[in-house]
Amino acid sequence: MARFFMLGTNLLGGTAIMTGKDAEHARVLRIRPGEDIIICDGKGTDYKCRVTIADKQQVEAEVIEVVPCKAEPSVAVSVLCGLPKGSDKTDYIIQKCVEAGASEIFFFPSDRCVARPENIEKKQERWQRISEEAAKQSGRGIIPQVGWLSDYASALDLAVHKDLGLFLYETGEREGLDTVLNAHTGIHSAALITGPEGGFAAFEADLARMAGLHICSMGERILRCETAPVVAVTAVMYATGNLS
Amino acid sequence: MARFFMLGTNLLGGTAIMTGKDAEHARVLRIRPGEDIIICDGKGTDYKCRVTIADKQQVEAEVIEVVPCKAEPSVAVSVLCGLPKGSDKTDYIIQKCVEAGASEIFFFPSDRCVARPENIEKKQERWQRISEEAAKQSGRGIIPQVGWLSDYASALDLAVHKDLGLFLYETGEREGLDTVLNAHTGIHSAALITGPEGGFAAFEADLARMAGLHICSMGERILRCETAPVVAVTAVMYATGNLS
Repeated sequence: MARFFMLGTNLLGGTAIMTGKDAEHARVLRIRPGEDIIICDGKGTDYKCRVTIADKQQVEAEVIEVVPCKAEPSVAVSVLCGLPKGSDKTDYIIQKCVEAGASEIFFFPSDRCVARPENIEKKQERWQRISEEAAKQSGRGIIPQVGWLSDYASALDLAVHKDLGLFLYETGEREGLDTVLNAHTGIHSAALITGPEGGFAAFEADLARMAGLHICSMGERILRCETAPVVAVTAVMYATGNLS
Repeated sequence: MARFFMLGTNLLGGTAIMTGKDAEHARVLRIRPGEDIIICDGKGTDYKCRVTIADKQQVEAEVIEVVPCKAEPSVAVSVLCGLPKGSDKTDYIIQKCVEAGASEIFFFPSDRCVARPENIEKKQERWQRISEEAAKQSGRGIIPQVGWLSDYASALDLAVHKDLGLFLYETGEREGLDTVLNAHTGIHSAALITGPEGGFAAFEADLARMAGLHICSMGERILRCETAPVVAVTAVMYATGNLS
């Protein structure tokens, strides 16, 4: 069933009205009166609707059922990544992490980042569009926010305010990711910090440790900077019963 | 430390000799006498070597330590995918599944495959090269084989001969992936069957069920055909203690 995101107010009164690019998208999908679609409020609620009018400018649909979006995981996972070099990697992280169940994704500059954070505003627009597309495609109940944090300290600060903050690191003294997750299965939020291509500098790991984050290993295989976040999100989903 | 794959015989007698593209690769990496490198036999054993000679044609190195490759998981996971359309998706599946810990990857034609399996021999060469690169990069002890199965029955046959055979499916009666994996944590081998873009036809799921595979759900989020194998491999690694 085709799926659209729409903010709450247009759905009041038992009728949904889609205009603009959503109406255009419906036209591309050749959606006709009588067909059922799902309109999601972007806050985790799905409105199952039957289309009554579908013309070039506008789609009108009658709400026939209101249900919580089943695809939303029980844990809100924030993915925080040292900015990788090349938009293919950022795009990939966004698309795959949204599919895997992340709730928000932020990039930040770190010591070994070689990427220059230029035109961040324009980049954020593209990032958000990729998130929206992945959210639609995978049936998510929210459009995960994708953004930019101007420094590493902001990433740490965001992470320490979650139920569980994990710093994924490939060397030194670490806890097993599974050990940590299995000891925290009842969490409602988690943050995952992963590095750019060159990994994190030792002082960044030290800061994370001092901030109270768990320094975690994901095994002996070296994961690329764009693979690690997806693997980590999947591990959290698995450990919290959101992959079944 | 730079990492190379080499088959067993050249390593006999305490000296390793690299020629051809490996010697060329060493030259690109500017490897000099006195430096340590790791040469892996491709069967799970790492030879830590000290380079004695490094010239254009040949690298000679003295074996100083022989250890099992720590990055090899305790479970051999076979990934079996309905051939997706577009080489970017197959390439992606190979690269990410090798990083995540898969032991072999096979593509096969299924009912809803839109891709034409043309020039398979040439494709297999490229697939194997991607596997080798990903294995080197992630520090694997083997180069996972990547191949082509000429029909769906061969995929089923391969899967039923593993300790655990899973058919990942997005609809109908299914077991939770976590339930199945948590009941089989002592496995030494597993097969994961995932579909092409359009998913599997109902009769293909029926055949898998009749063959004795577990029909599994990975939750309510719809994963792209190139994302599902990586998420599934990660789940197996997590459940069997290979992600810590």
